[in-house]
Order: sequence, then structure tokens, then C-alpha cells
Amino acid sequence: MIEPHGGNLVDLKTIAATEDLRENSSLVLTERGLADFEMLATGALSPLTGFMAKDDYLSTINNMRLSNGLVWSIPITLPITSDQYADLKTADEINLKDSTGKALGKIFVSDIYTYDKHLEAEKVYQTTDDKHPGVAALQMQGEYLIAGEVEVYSLPEYDIFQEYRLAPVELRKVFQEKGWQRIVGFQTRNPIHRAHEYITKCALEIVDGLLIHPLVGETKSDDIPASVRMECYRAILDNYFPHRHTVLAVYPAAMRYAGPREAIFHAITRKNYGCTHFIVGRDHAGIGNYYGTYDAQKIFENFTRDELGIEPLFFEHAFYCKRTDLMATTKTSRAMDHEKIFLSGSKVREILKSGGRLPEEFTRPEVEEILRRHYSNEKK
Amino acid sequence: MIEPHGGNLVDLKTIAATEDLRENSSLVLTERGLADFEMLATGALSPLTGFMAKDDYLSTINNMRLSNGLVWSIPITLPITSDQYADLKTADEINLKDSTGKALGKIFVSDIYTYDKHLEAEKVYQTTDDKHPGVAALQMQGEYLIAGEVEVYSLPEYDIFQEYRLAPVELRKVFQEKGWQRIVGFQTRNPIHRAHEYITKCALEIVDGLLIHPLVGETKSDDIPASVRMECYRAILDNYFPHRHTVLAVYPAAMRYAGPREAIFHAITRKNYGCTHFIVGRDHAGIGNYYGTYDAQKIFENFTRDELGIEPLFFEHAFYCKRTDLMATTKTSRAMDHEKIFLSGSKVREILKSGGRLPEEFTRPEVEEILRRHYSNEKK
Repeated sequence: MIEPHGGNLVDLKTIAATEDLRENSSLVLTERGLADFEMLATGALSPLTGFMAKDDYLSTINNMRLSNGLVWSIPITLPITSDQYADLKTADEINLKDSTGKALGKIFVSDIYTYDKHLEAEKVYQTTDDKHPGVAALQMQGEYLIAGEVEVYSLPEYDIFQEYRLAPVELRKVFQEKGWQRIVGFQTRNPIHRAHEYITKCALEIVDGLLIHPLVGETKSDDIPASVRMECYRAILDNYFPHRHTVLAVYPAAMRYAGPREAIFHAITRKNYGCTHFIVGRDHAGIGNYYGTYDAQKIFENFTRDELGIEPLFFEHAFYCKRTDLMATTKTSRAMDHEKIFLSGSKVREILKSGGRLPEEFTRPEVEEILRRHYSNEKK
Repeated sequence: MIEPHGGNLVDLKTIAATEDLRENSSLVLTERGLADFEMLATGALSPLTGFMAKDDYLSTINNMRLSNGLVWSIPITLPITSDQYADLKTADEINLKDSTGKALGKIFVSDIYTYDKHLEAEKVYQTTDDKHPGVAALQMQGEYLIAGEVEVYSLPEYDIFQEYRLAPVELRKVFQEKGWQRIVGFQTRNPIHRAHEYITKCALEIVDGLLIHPLVGETKSDDIPASVRMECYRAILDNYFPHRHTVLAVYPAAMRYAGPREAIFHAITRKNYGCTHFIVGRDHAGIGNYYGTYDAQKIFENFTRDELGIEPLFFEHAFYCKRTDLMATTKTSRAMDHEKIFLSGSKVREILKSGGRLPEEFTRPEVEEILRRHYSNEKK
């Protein structure tokens, strides 16, 4: 089994002492905070054991590495507002609560520091435009960052996908039981259309198993809801992928839309889940025109294979080729443009919103039906 | 560009001195000898600079390594008979000639040694059965092996495929001109049916370019002749592969049918041609039932990736899946057996010999036509 990032799988779980919970100051986590907390708690962010101190934060932003040199591309921070700062500035320990007031764990405060949002936006998102949802979230968050080790009593509770919420240690056990040595991870925040099916199957051909690992943390409002997407994934797995070589689990991270930087983050965290290979498609974790189509692939050139420890598999834009009646990319097809069937994400939404049908060459009928139902419910 | 095996690309070419050619003893190379000579001459066997001395020979056979530790799986030897030995035993230099008597180069004899054919058969072929064509060739060859550095005046001349006979240095130049960094090599001694097209395209999706590199050296008599195969390759490349991402060249090695050992040999020599990845399918370089279906993949576990320096891509048996109307393997398809279209090599021969047609799901029509013509000519 592949080594976790930095060598050891982190486990932050402990047993809560009731008096502890009573005495501490407390902080209610935002949706993103909960996602980061869950990622930390389960070891998905190994080797991180808490929210970043200033040296790691600055090193991540400026050098895409932790202060110890380990590759790390996205800051993991716990922001608080000035008002919260006034309450918490002298606290040594702070209970971390969900929106119901339940304490999920605590942070041992090592520092509370200010930071430069403009710099973070420029470095991480390559833009300071607040139409970018990652930049917008950054602008809206508090002016102080709490640093410190985290201790976990329980994971955030969700109504949905419980059976698919496999922590790194659980997913590694599944892989071991299946006897897989080489596992490719597929990150997605969209339904799986035939282009994705093609790419994941190409990748699966050269490894032992495929992990379909959709992001179900916070996404932007016009993305298709995770519950609808999960229905699509189940439909496609039940009909088009052999169970012996495919696993579906959810990835609890919040989406940053940081494009290239987030592709690195998605890859190294998948290593923690036991993946040896990771699919990076066109415009991975991108949005709008903020990143070049293949920037999220090119960024991998900055790191050696040993530093990353996971093999990225780069794919081009796939389409249905009418000349050969097969899925393909420009690398593998001689099709002229008029022989290619491809729809953009916005075109798909437009068709479905107007009650139209997606062609079978683009989407499996089982997926099409789920999406059509979703959009028709939305209208009502 | 990837480093050649052992670090440097060998170049044995020099200019012949006429008096040299006259004075030396000489040896007419067999068909296999010519193939090995060409492989040595062009640097395809880098770092070898001649036919193996006893220490390298024994180390290759026993340890799958040269005496310096470098991975090497197939002995490269120059056998002579007892009669030839009587003539040549005192020679320091021997001219190496083709069957027309033209001197192509010479060998500086460092040793002439006897060897254990039984041991070589057991180690290299895993069988001493002389129905195995590799073992049969071994049994028929001479009892002595000449060791020594080789000097090359000219390459063997062939009537066919001249434009496709690209030496490692030439092929590397082609890759450089195309701007390819990651190149997958595909070894074949058969026509490309749809199963092979599928596998090569899967592999191409994760690299920059595909080298279709058919073996055109000596093969067994019931293999389809190289000239017919080349016609098939051209047809399939012209119709189903984009030129921007595919190159066709010939691999002048003789076929040993050594299965797993030959898969390693095929991989490391492709590194010399500039490939970074190499496709290893089921029963690679195998014949009959001498090797397990995936033995030629498992043997790669004996070596680290750094030792090999080339990434093997392992593929399972591919078929046309009637359930999805796509090519697939058992890893990527939920098809029941009756939904799979696949024909064995012997079934293909049987159909074509009896004047039948191959299904389009199995073979592209352009290839089918060439094969049908070949078999119908054969009958006449």
C-alpha cells in the first residue's frame, strides 16, 4: 500500500472529557470549516494535524510547500472575524462546534495571526477578482487565522452518503481486501458523462482499481447538488463498471476552484486515501477562464515524482467520434470537428432546463433520466 | 529525452579499411545473427558493444543482469559450429558478412567459449522442449560462442521497409521534432486488430505519442509475414490514428518467443529508441502454453522502476463488448461472456484460410481486406 503524504497517516480522534467541553471557549465552524475539520480528523490531510501556523501558511502560499519542504499547495486555515478575535484572543483551547452547538473537537491554540488576503488570492487563485468563488470566500472570511493542533471527539454528522463516507484508513482497508495494488483516483464535482466514463476506463486499464471519489463538500450554487450526482454515480457504476474493479466513496473537501493548485492538493490528499495514480483532466478544479485549459497538468512539472509520491495521469478533452463510433480525444481520433459529439457544461444545463434530451453519445440514458428529473423538479 | 539503458547510446559505425577486410577470417551471419548485428550496430542494444563474453552471458542467464548489475534478460551471442571453430579459433578479428559475401563489419575476438544449451533453455525459455521455437533455434545453433566488440561498416541491406528502419538516434530525433516527452512503445508481431487498437489508444491517452514498433526480424513460419503486416499497420494508421501522435517504425530484432524474459528485453531496448512507456499485454512474446497469461507482466516485479528506467503499462485481454458497443476488458466491462466478441489467433487463421470474413467488431475492414487477400494468394 502506498505511503501517506509525509509518511504517516494522521489520526486525531480522542475521547472527549466532559469538563473540558464545558470550560473552553468555543467556535461554531462554517461549512468550509467543517469540511476542513473532517479532512483533518480522518487523516485525509496527513501530515497536517491541525490548522496551519503562520510559517506553514506562508510557505504554502509562496512555495507550494510546508515549511519542512513537503509539497503542499492549498492553505488549511481557521479564520475568525475581529469580533470573534476579541472573545477568543486569550484562549488556550477552543471547542469546535457544528451548527447545532455540538462540540466535535477542540483546537489547542498556538497562535492567532493576521494575513494578507490579497497575497493569498494572487498566489493561490492567480487572481484577485472577487467574481472567482474562491477569492469571494476568502474576501468574506475573517481577518484572523487561528493556528493549532486539533483534537477530534466526533466527525461532523450528515444525513446523506453515510455509507460512502470512507476515511483514508477505511478506504485503504477496502483496497487491501480487494487485492488492489495500483489504484487510480477520480475527482469529480459533476455527473459522470461518457467523456468521464471513457477517461476513467482508460486509466483503469493500466491499474487494478478505480476510486470514483466525488467531492461532496461545499461547491458553488449552480453546480449540480451532491445528492443528485451520487444518484448518477450509482447508476453508472451499476450499469457500466464492474464492481470488482471500482469503488465509490465521497471526498469531504470543500471546493476552492483554485485550478492548478487544487489539482496538486487533490492528488496528494488522494495519496492519503491509498491511491497510487490520480486523473487530471482539462481545466481540473477550474472555473470560468481563470486558468489555461492544461495549466492544472503543467503545474505537476514543478515537482519530482518522488516528491509527489502519486502518479498523475493527464487526459485531454474527450468526445464521441462519429467516424469510429467510439469515445476518443484528439490524440486518438482522426475525426473532423463535425464528426465529434461534445456538449459544454452550460449547453447541458441549457438543454436540461428547457426540457430537452441529451444525446446517448454524450450521456448514458440512466444518467440522463436522473438529471432530467432533477431539472424538472427544480422548475416546479 | 529518456536516457538509454545504462546511460549512453552506443554507436559502432566506423569506416572500413580495405586491407583489413581482405586479411581477416570471415563468418557469414545467419538471419538471427544479422538481426542481432543490426541491433548492436544501431545502439538498440545499448549498452552492449558486441557479442557477450562469458561473464555477461552467464550473468544474463542466471541473474537477468549483466555482470555489472544492469538489467538484461536475453543473451546476445554469436554461435559457431565445431567446423567453424576449427577455422576461426586462432583469429583475432573476424569479418562479419551477409549472405552475399559483403563484409558488414568485424568482431574483435576476446574469447570463444562453450556453453550449456540445456541451462540456457531452462533459464531463458523455462522449458527444454524443442517444440518451442526458441529452444529449437538454440538446439540447432553451434556449440561455441564468439565474444568480442563489434565494429560496423554498413547495416544489413533489405529490400523492404527501408523508410521505416529508424535507428534509435533517428527515432529519438523524430520524437524531439514532434515535441513528445512521453512516448509509449507498442511491440507487435501480428496485425493490429481492434483489441490492439484499443490498448494502444488507452496508453496513448496518458502520454504524448505512440510508437507502433513491429518486430520484422525472424519470426516463426506461421506468423503473418512482415510485409503483409506492414500493409495492415499503414492502413490502420491512415484511417484510425492521428499522425500527429503516432509513428510507425520497424524493430529489427529476431523473435525468441521467450515470453517474460523477452518482455523485459523488449522494454529495455525500447528505452534506447526513446520510449518512456512500454505496453505489455497478455502472453507478451509467448507461444503455445509455455508461459502463464500474465507471467510477462509479473516478471517486472523483480526490478525497481529506476532499474528498468521505462514504465511498463500492463493490459488485460481486450474484446468488443456488445452491451456497450465499445472495446473493453474485464476490468472495464460488465459484459457476460455471450456479449463479448473475441477471436483467438488460430480462429482468425481458420476463418481467413477458409475464405470467411472477420467481423467488423474484431478487425477494421481495411485490415480484414489485406489479410483476406494474403490468405487467398497463399492458397493459389
